[in-house]
Amino acid sequence: MADNDKKLQEKIKSQGELVRKLKADGADKAKVTEEVNKLLELKKQLGDEGSKKFVLKTPKGTRDFAPGQMAIREGVFSKIIACFKRHGAETIDTPVFELKETLTGKYGEDSKLIYDLADQGGELLALRYDLTVPFARYLAMNKVSNIKRYHIAKVYRRDNPAMNRGRYREFYQCDFDIAGQYDLMLPDAECIKIVTEILSSLEIGDFVVKVNHRKLLDGMFAACGVPDDKFRPICSSVDKLDKTFWNDVRCEMVDEKGLDPKAADMIGEYVGFKGGIGQVNELLTDENLKAQKNALEGLEELKLLLTYCELYGVADKVCFDMSLARGLDYYTGVIYEAVLTGSTAQAVAQNTDEPVGVGSVAGGGRYDGLVGMFDSKGKKVPCVGVSIGIERLFSIMEAKAAAAEKKLRTTETEVYVIAAQKGMVEERLKLVSALWEADIKTEQSYKKNTKMLNEFQYCEQNGIPLALIIGQSEIENGVVKLKVMGSREEREVPRASMVEEIRTSLAALRSNGSEG
Amino acid sequence: MADNDKKLQEKIKSQGELVRKLKADGADKAKVTEEVNKLLELKKQLGDEGSKKFVLKTPKGTRDFAPGQMAIREGVFSKIIACFKRHGAETIDTPVFELKETLTGKYGEDSKLIYDLADQGGELLALRYDLTVPFARYLAMNKVSNIKRYHIAKVYRRDNPAMNRGRYREFYQCDFDIAGQYDLMLPDAECIKIVTEILSSLEIGDFVVKVNHRKLLDGMFAACGVPDDKFRPICSSVDKLDKTFWNDVRCEMVDEKGLDPKAADMIGEYVGFKGGIGQVNELLTDENLKAQKNALEGLEELKLLLTYCELYGVADKVCFDMSLARGLDYYTGVIYEAVLTGSTAQAVAQNTDEPVGVGSVAGGGRYDGLVGMFDSKGKKVPCVGVSIGIERLFSIMEAKAAAAEKKLRTTETEVYVIAAQKGMVEERLKLVSALWEADIKTEQSYKKNTKMLNEFQYCEQNGIPLALIIGQSEIENGVVKLKVMGSREEREVPRASMVEEIRTSLAALRSNGSEG
Repeated sequence: MADNDKKLQEKIKSQGELVRKLKADGADKAKVTEEVNKLLELKKQLGDEGSKKFVLKTPKGTRDFAPGQMAIREGVFSKIIACFKRHGAETIDTPVFELKETLTGKYGEDSKLIYDLADQGGELLALRYDLTVPFARYLAMNKVSNIKRYHIAKVYRRDNPAMNRGRYREFYQCDFDIAGQYDLMLPDAECIKIVTEILSSLEIGDFVVKVNHRKLLDGMFAACGVPDDKFRPICSSVDKLDKTFWNDVRCEMVDEKGLDPKAADMIGEYVGFKGGIGQVNELLTDENLKAQKNALEGLEELKLLLTYCELYGVADKVCFDMSLARGLDYYTGVIYEAVLTGSTAQAVAQNTDEPVGVGSVAGGGRYDGLVGMFDSKGKKVPCVGVSIGIERLFSIMEAKAAAAEKKLRTTETEVYVIAAQKGMVEERLKLVSALWEADIKTEQSYKKNTKMLNEFQYCEQNGIPLALIIGQSEIENGVVKLKVMGSREEREVPRASMVEEIRTSLAALRSNGSEG
Repeated sequence: MADNDKKLQEKIKSQGELVRKLKADGADKAKVTEEVNKLLELKKQLGDEGSKKFVLKTPKGTRDFAPGQMAIREGVFSKIIACFKRHGAETIDTPVFELKETLTGKYGEDSKLIYDLADQGGELLALRYDLTVPFARYLAMNKVSNIKRYHIAKVYRRDNPAMNRGRYREFYQCDFDIAGQYDLMLPDAECIKIVTEILSSLEIGDFVVKVNHRKLLDGMFAACGVPDDKFRPICSSVDKLDKTFWNDVRCEMVDEKGLDPKAADMIGEYVGFKGGIGQVNELLTDENLKAQKNALEGLEELKLLLTYCELYGVADKVCFDMSLARGLDYYTGVIYEAVLTGSTAQAVAQNTDEPVGVGSVAGGGRYDGLVGMFDSKGKKVPCVGVSIGIERLFSIMEAKAAAAEKKLRTTETEVYVIAAQKGMVEERLKLVSALWEADIKTEQSYKKNTKMLNEFQYCEQNGIPLALIIGQSEIENGVVKLKVMGSREEREVPRASMVEEIRTSLAALRSNGSEG
């Protein structure tokens, strides 16, 4: 069988080569069709023979989530959603794919990573690459001019996956954005506040939120003598500084992108700037920068942003960093990125061969022009937002849970109904039915005949706190036995009051904090 | 501009025709390439000119969810999830796309509705068509032989959308499945119990769960003289009976699928059977059916299922119906489908031109062979499950909410911080910061200067129950003003105890049930 298979595959290969050659030579159409049909016939044979042999896997760069992982993931989501709601956000949802043209021209060099759907007739579609462009499309389409919304959903990038570093082709983004014509830096500062609240609540160690400004970057490029049409490509190069040494970035600028070496060296000086309001003030005295209106505006806005961050009590978590550029084309103002700096982060970095630092766990910025790109009259809706990089956070939480060695419950079952003798299916069905009716989370075995010992074991393995036992004598006396699994306490309770008794026991366990 | 555009489009059209003709004629390759390039050049011009003119829409058959819709949707989800958890289910997640071959050969006639991804190099992928096949793939891949799981996620079908009837190309499924080698009908009955619990909890009026059995159908087909190889096609025809009259279905069987008219007429007799255990018992005396082992097994299992349903107290919601067939190939045992029969359902049906009834709101069945199709040794894992048709339920809930005319809150904001005078940004930032710190859901304006009256209006429009007011005199006295929006009560509280006071007010409002 395996041999036949191999021969067949060789035949397919050579037939495929023949077809390609005929096509390349512009051979007669009928001839090509004939040979293509032969090829399809051969492939079909392989399909029949190999029907049990396909690779059993998820697509490259994707993964399943098992119940234990889901429990961790939902814990992380609930903390993030709690924060978004604390800040008064609504939520929306958009389709997983968009018209291809909706995504076109929004992502610069990254556009090649967009997943296209096959053309099966009808519209040309592509999977969403982020949640920001669909959000902008939503605002323009529904003529929404102000909203504060969060959106938690999967996005898709045909990137080179590095799953051990939390980089996937399908991954969740948790986005919070504020759209509307508001006063300078007030929404921007709240986004940064939100990032600090979320990262603190997850208890993953120290972190810093780097901030910079696209106008300052553009002004700086102008001051260094970068030609206008090279702003975005040079900005893309600067963006690589978190993962690449300056010398390599400089090479890319000069050799690949044709930048004057002197300009590159000047940029090299500026991108070393980092700190707080003091450093912003220092740059405000730089004659070269001051001459650039853009740079001046950027610096003034950063100063106001840092002042607000101080009032929000998060100044110690925020760091002005001129080397921060962000890859995407659509940013127009403040940009920021949160990176972990604590020991948890270091441990993860060591495990995962990350070259420098552990990369970003949140990022965002202001994009005042994006909605206008979707409006027929170009009407702008200023926006600022943040995206939480949930996969990396999730990897860290998963590692923490594994280290804690505490068994995580994946169900919330409160009561397990057990028969004391064989063949009590009818009684069990009536009991579980009554408990479900009372909104008590209840399970039972799907076997007709069960063994008590195995049933108790099941409760222990799954952390089910209570067992309800029914046997012939209990039926005769109109009672059930209620067993607290943790303490092994067991008591008889009248069937009429079993729901009450269970609720009392559950409340007692909860207040003892020993439910799980 | 519009004229130029039109001319350009005409040029593109005729150039496109030329290219198609050349290709059809098997013209010289170089010539084809040349003309294709001309076509691309023209299209590019259109792209440049038309850059602001693209259609602003979501893809055909899909929609956005605005915050108000999300609030309803999340309400429905939370009731469904509560039920799944009450029955002790875990949850898993799988990628939105699968290897194309994973989906191949699982959906019979419906396979043509699968969305393929474009071949951009690498694996051939397709969007998931349901959650059942990915679940089976998950079980086989991870060698899981028993699990009770729910999965709520979007699935994709290139169907003819009928959005006013709740039929979309992207839609949520809420699946609950029990996998494992268990005793007859125990998991199957629980799935039906779950459907009744969910539909009751949503308060959408009366419903009935139709049940049938694939083995009984196959046995009946054999008894009617349907040849083996026509079982599945004839089953597909029977499946149309909920939307099509018998005469049309009979035509399809005889004229399109070549069935003997006598066999069709016999089928016509059987599919009229419906009722309870009585009708099952009646069929058990049918000599024709009894001669078929399959039919006998199916009837015995249905009898047991209906007995369990009685013990679960849902017999009045369940109806044995021989005309129920279910479209998908993979079912092997009990099948069921829930349909609404109450006045809500009728109203929706009238609004939406539904031909007969309002269609299914939940469906499922047993599929014992599916996991084995993914296992290299063909190891089977018996499964039974149910899928809740959330979009239709959601449409009904949305219509109900609209009819109730009660404004639905889309945020959970508890306190709005308002400045009594202009320019109190610093004070406001400090206040909201303190409230967020105390986990109180708080908002404020993103404007530096605000008008009290507008701010109060905002609270009223958005159902925010409390306003916290700060002014120059309050700052001087170390107090804030707390206003209960509903009663317009206002009191001064010391700044040091404002968090306490807010919590007290919120608790009072909650116990009055007047928060919203």
